Amino acid sequence: MALYFVTGNRGKFREVSEMAKKYGLVLEQSEIPYIEIQAEDLKEVAKVGVQQAFAMLKRPCFVEDSGLYIHSLGGFPGPYSKYVYLTIGNEGILKLMSGFSHRGAEFRCSVGYCEKADEPVVFEGKVMGRISTELRGSGGFGFDPIFIPEEGDGRTFAEMSVEEKNALSHRGRAIEEFFRWYVIHRRERSGE
Amino acid sequence: MALYFVTGNRGKFREVSEMAKKYGLVLEQSEIPYIEIQAEDLKEVAKVGVQQAFAMLKRPCFVEDSGLYIHSLGGFPGPYSKYVYLTIGNEGILKLMSGFSHRGAEFRCSVGYCEKADEPVVFEGKVMGRISTELRGSGGFGFDPIFIPEEGDGRTFAEMSVEEKNALSHRGRAIEEFFRWYVIHRRERSGE
Repeated sequence: MALYFVTGNRGKFREVSEMAKKYGLVLEQSEIPYIEIQAEDLKEVAKVGVQQAFAMLKRPCFVEDSGLYIHSLGGFPGPYSKYVYLTIGNEGILKLMSGFSHRGAEFRCSVGYCEKADEPVVFEGKVMGRISTELRGSGGFGFDPIFIPEEGDGRTFAEMSVEEKNALSHRGRAIEEFFRWYVIHRRERSGE
Repeated sequence: MALYFVTGNRGKFREVSEMAKKYGLVLEQSEIPYIEIQAEDLKEVAKVGVQQAFAMLKRPCFVEDSGLYIHSLGGFPGPYSKYVYLTIGNEGILKLMSGFSHRGAEFRCSVGYCEKADEPVVFEGKVMGRISTELRGSGGFGFDPIFIPEEGDGRTFAEMSVEEKNALSHRGRAIEEFFRWYVIHRRERSGE
């Protein structure tokens, strides 16, 4: 049975489809609009969101919600990263960071999967890093040009290839965990 | 029957209770936590929110949701004003505004009332103004120290008394509209 990734973001769909290959999974994109609640905890957003999406789609599906949490800004923009990106953008974040010597930040991701009403499963991923002092790179999307992961070589996410970013990123980690679980779960479900 | 204002914000409760007196209404505060959805349209947030609150409280109740929309920032912080206030605060907004000569902004408010499941009623209010260049005043709450209403005398909302602010504000306008409707509606309902 097809596995649906419910997202309107083609950048995300591209990244995640790339990872699915390794597990022999083929994803379908669905742009069905599900409700995202206002909550500080991404896990809650993904959990409630995937239940909504499943109720409409009636097919096994997953949603993904991620956010950039900047330590000096009290976790801003956090769960509202998409909205903040679309309004004040990367330039706005750099403006807000001026004067702060501590530029530590983290990207967090929650993936919610559902194949049966009221039984959502959630997976999480996180990557530590810092906010750059200027925009660098044209890959990725969103805040990628200003985020330098700690475990990298000093490049921003936007300066990396999809594969390099997936290996380090919050989304890569949450999705890996989900796919590993899903492959085993599917086997058990089908009684193999 | 008592009329419940569902809010965890005592500043709001104080302001709105002040206005209720004129209509001979006595409000009860309820801090029952209802779900706020992520939506650009405050009307939707209030509508869905009051239905949730009513489902739990089972008493006639209203909720209020307001936001500051800054024109040069694409409407930021808009529906996420509370979160943005709690993270980057007024200082963050002033930082973001540096370099912008156009400082126009508006405060919007939606009030949702419900006394019967699936029949929410929504009222709206708006006030035009501009973002000050520094924080002024200690009244009000939230973004009041940086918002100068167009129809005022150059003072920020935080420099005004509760009565002065209510006469001009987005919340004052939406609440007035609601109370005027509510008093008539209650009379009709009781068959007077």
